[in-house]
Amino acid sequence: MPINLVYVFEIIGTFVFAVSGVSTAASKRFDIVGVSIIAFVTAIGGGTLRDVMIGVQPVSWMLDQNYIYTIFAAVGLSFFFLPYLLKLRRTLFIFDTIGLGLFAIIGLEKALAAGLTPVVAIMMGTVSAVFGGVLRDILSNSIPLIFGGRLYASICVVGGIVYLLLIEMEIPKYTTMIATVFFIIILRSLSVKFKWSLPQIK
Amino acid sequence: MPINLVYVFEIIGTFVFAVSGVSTAASKRFDIVGVSIIAFVTAIGGGTLRDVMIGVQPVSWMLDQNYIYTIFAAVGLSFFFLPYLLKLRRTLFIFDTIGLGLFAIIGLEKALAAGLTPVVAIMMGTVSAVFGGVLRDILSNSIPLIFGGRLYASICVVGGIVYLLLIEMEIPKYTTMIATVFFIIILRSLSVKFKWSLPQIK
Amino acid sequence: MPINLVYVFEIIGTFVFAVSGVSTAASKRFDIVGVSIIAFVTAIGGGTLRDVMIGVQPVSWMLDQNYIYTIFAAVGLSFFFLPYLLKLRRTLFIFDTIGLGLFAIIGLEKALAAGLTPVVAIMMGTVSAVFGGVLRDILSNSIPLIFGGRLYASICVVGGIVYLLLIEMEIPKYTTMIATVFFIIILRSLSVKFKWSLPQIK
Repeated sequence: MPINLVYVFEIIGTFVFAVSGVSTAASKRFDIVGVSIIAFVTAIGGGTLRDVMIGVQPVSWMLDQNYIYTIFAAVGLSFFFLPYLLKLRRTLFIFDTIGLGLFAIIGLEKALAAGLTPVVAIMMGTVSAVFGGVLRDILSNSIPLIFGGRLYASICVVGGIVYLLLIEMEIPKYTTMIATVFFIIILRSLSVKFKWSLPQIK
Repeated sequence: MPINLVYVFEIIGTFVFAVSGVSTAASKRFDIVGVSIIAFVTAIGGGTLRDVMIGVQPVSWMLDQNYIYTIFAAVGLSFFFLPYLLKLRRTLFIFDTIGLGLFAIIGLEKALAAGLTPVVAIMMGTVSAVFGGVLRDILSNSIPLIFGGRLYASICVVGGIVYLLLIEMEIPKYTTMIATVFFIIILRSLSVKFKWSLPQIK
Repeated sequence: MPINLVYVFEIIGTFVFAVSGVSTAASKRFDIVGVSIIAFVTAIGGGTLRDVMIGVQPVSWMLDQNYIYTIFAAVGLSFFFLPYLLKLRRTLFIFDTIGLGLFAIIGLEKALAAGLTPVVAIMMGTVSAVFGGVLRDILSNSIPLIFGGRLYASICVVGGIVYLLLIEMEIPKYTTMIATVFFIIILRSLSVKFKWSLPQIK
């Protein structure tokens, strides 16, 4: 898997995350600027938090305007075609899951590159993948979705463990990446299909 | 416009932002410490987020205690005179708008100085100007005001574009600054007077 | 007071803060991953914000996994014994107050070490001690507890002033630390016993 393919999927993941932000913000009747802000926060919030905690500054999306153009494209397309976009639920779900997996792996790799331990790296991967959505929900004054009901953050954690195990087994990085993303897609699809949920504390 | 005048207006802007925080917090019946925290977050939250994302640390207000004294002065005065302060609505509105414009320009300049592109710089200017208010609303558990109804963030974006165009035309920096702030004041006054609003996504 | 005792109390403080996060999250019926995220944010959120604002990166807890294990232990024990843990209210209260005092002092010291002024250092100490709780409440979509009713942030501020005065009087650092933490415990106990509260702004 050449590095460019990772980049392409990262951009697609950014697009899908931005659409999810637009969709939340539109349902709260925010105006176009409010919608754009939520789209940005959803798409780049997780990576921003990760970079700031690790100490990678300026934060990475600030150095590559393609992320910005992608988010504006998502907002622009949504302005005209949001109902149609939302009908592509199955497609969006797959790209959202690919985004989730890729963001988790990229975050994990960045943390390892900064000399952090595997445990912290898995946490940073999970932060990258899920905190955009958390910030989206906080800004919309809702309880973050990831706190209940669906498996989401836990899938990133399991995906991160699988990724590190495969790397440890000296399987080449791109094979590992593809395998992990597939694993995450399957795990998430199963979790949605069979309505898996996690126990609560009483 | 000598640099000192910019500084004076920045301090006044800080004061007015702090009063806006006090006013929100008092309406939620927070105690004096809660009110002070909200006043701080409103006044320095946007600049803090900007500095952290760019990588300017310690964050700038931590190196100049005049900001801190200004915010404490705003809280102290509000403790005795909040109803009177709030009656000065028109004056506060003008200083709030000057603050908005100046914070946007200062943020934009800081981002350019860090080598970031004009597009990112306009975003950083807008973040500086509006995110203090966003954090104020989140901490008070309200939906951020900027997401609907009034033009606010969009005015910072337009102001940033005007500023960069004037700089590009090689107009001296202080003239550009004054012109942009005046432009922002006029634009915002018109937007309030004629109740301009932005479209929503359906 | 040898440095190791400070570390031991820091770990205990982290545990107690994590339990407070678990308890809030469990009352909102979050699943085990949601509970873990809230536990983390409560325990390390204040220190993370402080480090990021000062520019200490990677953030300190990322370099010492004992904090992470402590939080997981708190979540794990809570999963089986939360009702019993919550019955130890008086013990938890004391450790929470020790944690509060220690986090405030450690934050203050870090800020001084970074060359910041005493006023800013007291603010950073307070941020370290209380912002984990603020973030816990925001993520649970509640109005932060510190904004009303109870003395909490103000105790950190007063504790910070006492600490700096004792240091100024050239009392040895560990004596100062013990004295300040005792002072904070007594002040907080009195404030709870006599239901002290702060005035509001009208």
